[in-house]
Amino acid sequence: MLRELVFVGLGLNDENGITLQGLQEAQSADHVFIELYTSLLPDFSLRNLENLVGKPIQVLSRRNLEEENGRLLFDAAEAGKAVFLVPGDPFIATTHVTLRVEAAKRSLPTRVVHGASIISAIIGVSGLHNYKFGKTVTIPFPENFSETPYNVIAQNKQLGMHTLCLLDLNATERRFMTIREALGLLQGIEEKKQQGIAADDALAVGLARAGSNQPTLKADFLRELANFDFGQPPMTLIFPGQLHFTEADALIAFAGAPTKLRSLAK
Amino acid sequence: MLRELVFVGLGLNDENGITLQGLQEAQSADHVFIELYTSLLPDFSLRNLENLVGKPIQVLSRRNLEEENGRLLFDAAEAGKAVFLVPGDPFIATTHVTLRVEAAKRSLPTRVVHGASIISAIIGVSGLHNYKFGKTVTIPFPENFSETPYNVIAQNKQLGMHTLCLLDLNATERRFMTIREALGLLQGIEEKKQQGIAADDALAVGLARAGSNQPTLKADFLRELANFDFGQPPMTLIFPGQLHFTEADALIAFAGAPTKLRSLAK
Repeated sequence: MLRELVFVGLGLNDENGITLQGLQEAQSADHVFIELYTSLLPDFSLRNLENLVGKPIQVLSRRNLEEENGRLLFDAAEAGKAVFLVPGDPFIATTHVTLRVEAAKRSLPTRVVHGASIISAIIGVSGLHNYKFGKTVTIPFPENFSETPYNVIAQNKQLGMHTLCLLDLNATERRFMTIREALGLLQGIEEKKQQGIAADDALAVGLARAGSNQPTLKADFLRELANFDFGQPPMTLIFPGQLHFTEADALIAFAGAPTKLRSLAK
Repeated sequence: MLRELVFVGLGLNDENGITLQGLQEAQSADHVFIELYTSLLPDFSLRNLENLVGKPIQVLSRRNLEEENGRLLFDAAEAGKAVFLVPGDPFIATTHVTLRVEAAKRSLPTRVVHGASIISAIIGVSGLHNYKFGKTVTIPFPENFSETPYNVIAQNKQLGMHTLCLLDLNATERRFMTIREALGLLQGIEEKKQQGIAADDALAVGLARAGSNQPTLKADFLRELANFDFGQPPMTLIFPGQLHFTEADALIAFAGAPTKLRSLAK
């Protein structure tokens, strides 16, 4: 009997973000599961995906996966081929790394079918150079307030590097932080620390709904960016470090950045 | 008349790494192009992809895209819908950012269909935490020798951060750097600099053929890793910084790391 757990990435937007291989894995599985709480797929329809796969897909909650340690998933994988569908690239959410370690402890074979991730998408779409990104941070909701993101941006900037800021989400309430909220939180820290990271004349790049048919990308100084209408989540922010002139050109071309940026680039 | 250039990512391994959306875009295009020189898709067959798309796909060389500034691509996109297929996620190769800037200058509409990238795949597969990666480097062939990668690894390590090392490729000769070559180059710099970055007791993680059916992942001290048989390219390296204990567990479970790693983790 085949015992197997296959993690399949769903990419960024809707049911067509799955790869041909991912779809084939789901079609040939004995049981198909999905989680939709670690990130938001703007135009996703479970029903459409079930039609593509040709069988029902069981939705797993945070409770199923974290508090119950993925029992439903492992029960199915111990008795056949289980496919677990996950937004983005499966292991960018560290909670799923834990599941894979648990599978290894059970000597349960696992495989991975990768999907597109916001991590590479935003780098590409912004035109900023991949090798100039420093440490990534997540900006937490006020209930988990932390000055770490501000400090990481400052540390990266000092080294000339860009900072990718992922925005917090509250899985149970399905609440996704907006760029405006994130900037407000950083501006609050700015008032105290005064290092210029979230000052009015600091530059940032916002991206909403990456991978959808209507992504919104905008680069501007915080004075302006804080009032820009990005539409619906999910959203991501970048605080650029020292810009290369080709990066400035890309931000002007793709992200409607002020042409003044050219004079700030090297 | 529709003028449009759509960049579509092919993911990591073969023709089944394209997303359903990417395939639909190619099927509805007037002209379909591909480049296969910025990275290596281990099990890719152009013929199989042409069968899936249902039309011929024109292969563009480095010369076509860089020296001739993508003329073939733009001629097609000015006269209809052109789809350009690219390994991985389209804009991780900065050469394609240049094409997109050129399209913007021509007021030619562009769209992006993202694909899986080694950037997110190796983070997930290794089980290392995404937010602990510092700056990424590419390790160049000896003809482009540079001490920069060594210095970047050292700088990241000092901050406790991991370093993702992409390995060089020679597009015209279709030559792909192996992990053994990369380690040899770093060990050469080690002899001179003696900072311990590529010393025998330094830890590294190698990954070959990410996203294929037979990826090889191995974490070990350089003394051992330099002689490990990773099989065929493409390959990637990570030099970990300070390990969290869950990261050590993941490397032991997924990458056959020595259990001694647990005592080095925090």
